[in-house]
Amino acid sequence: MLIRRAEKMPGEPVEMDGARFVTMRLMVGRDDGAANFAMRHFTVEPGGHTPRHSHDYEHEVYVVSGSARVEHDGEFQEFGSGDVVYIRPQALHQFTNTGDGQFAFLCMVPVTRDCGTPTPGS
Amino acid sequence: MLIRRAEKMPGEPVEMDGARFVTMRLMVGRDDGAANFAMRHFTVEPGGHTPRHSHDYEHEVYVVSGSARVEHDGEFQEFGSGDVVYIRPQALHQFTNTGDGQFAFLCMVPVTRDCGTPTPGS
Repeated sequence: MLIRRAEKMPGEPVEMDGARFVTMRLMVGRDDGAANFAMRHFTVEPGGHTPRHSHDYEHEVYVVSGSARVEHDGEFQEFGSGDVVYIRPQALHQFTNTGDGQFAFLCMVPVTRDCGTPTPGS
Repeated sequence: MLIRRAEKMPGEPVEMDGARFVTMRLMVGRDDGAANFAMRHFTVEPGGHTPRHSHDYEHEVYVVSGSARVEHDGEFQEFGSGDVVYIRPQALHQFTNTGDGQFAFLCMVPVTRDCGTPTPGS
């Protein structure tokens, strides 16, 4: 049976343009047999942010710890531990750590994009 | 933009055969436009458990708080806050609260099953 904890999974620095102090851990993905969607765990250190971008697939996000500001198609909102955020396909979005500590969140994505190619990080 | 917290969402008691002291909150689902998968938040009170059953779709689970025992195709394991569990399609599974407090977890499911019909609770 597959049981995992983020702190025991290997972290990959996110090198994408516009990412700062972001690390990703793939918790459940295609290689585990997940045919529909993947769970990734991200940390953003103080002063860091995810890329400001958009893509053809959605995010479902759950905040594990910390606080941040989310941009979603020109709208900004503060959010934090225990909040759930839905990022629509094609929405321009970014998460910026606004706290003194680490911002950690789960981000679920479909494993394939609209045209059937694998979703990055899934 | 869609930002939600479990404690502000309406809870539905899970009336399914074999469920005891279980409440579900749909955090993101088909009605929100989620085309691929849904996020549900479950609580299980002390002494309670989810149904012992199997189905043709997977679960990706993140434990928010508390501790429990999971059964997965005849294998049993204790797990708790911060753990991620993957339940394979067709695996016989059940979560039983083994703690003194509430056991709370996120459970993600695809929104459609193998034959294209909506997944219950998505």
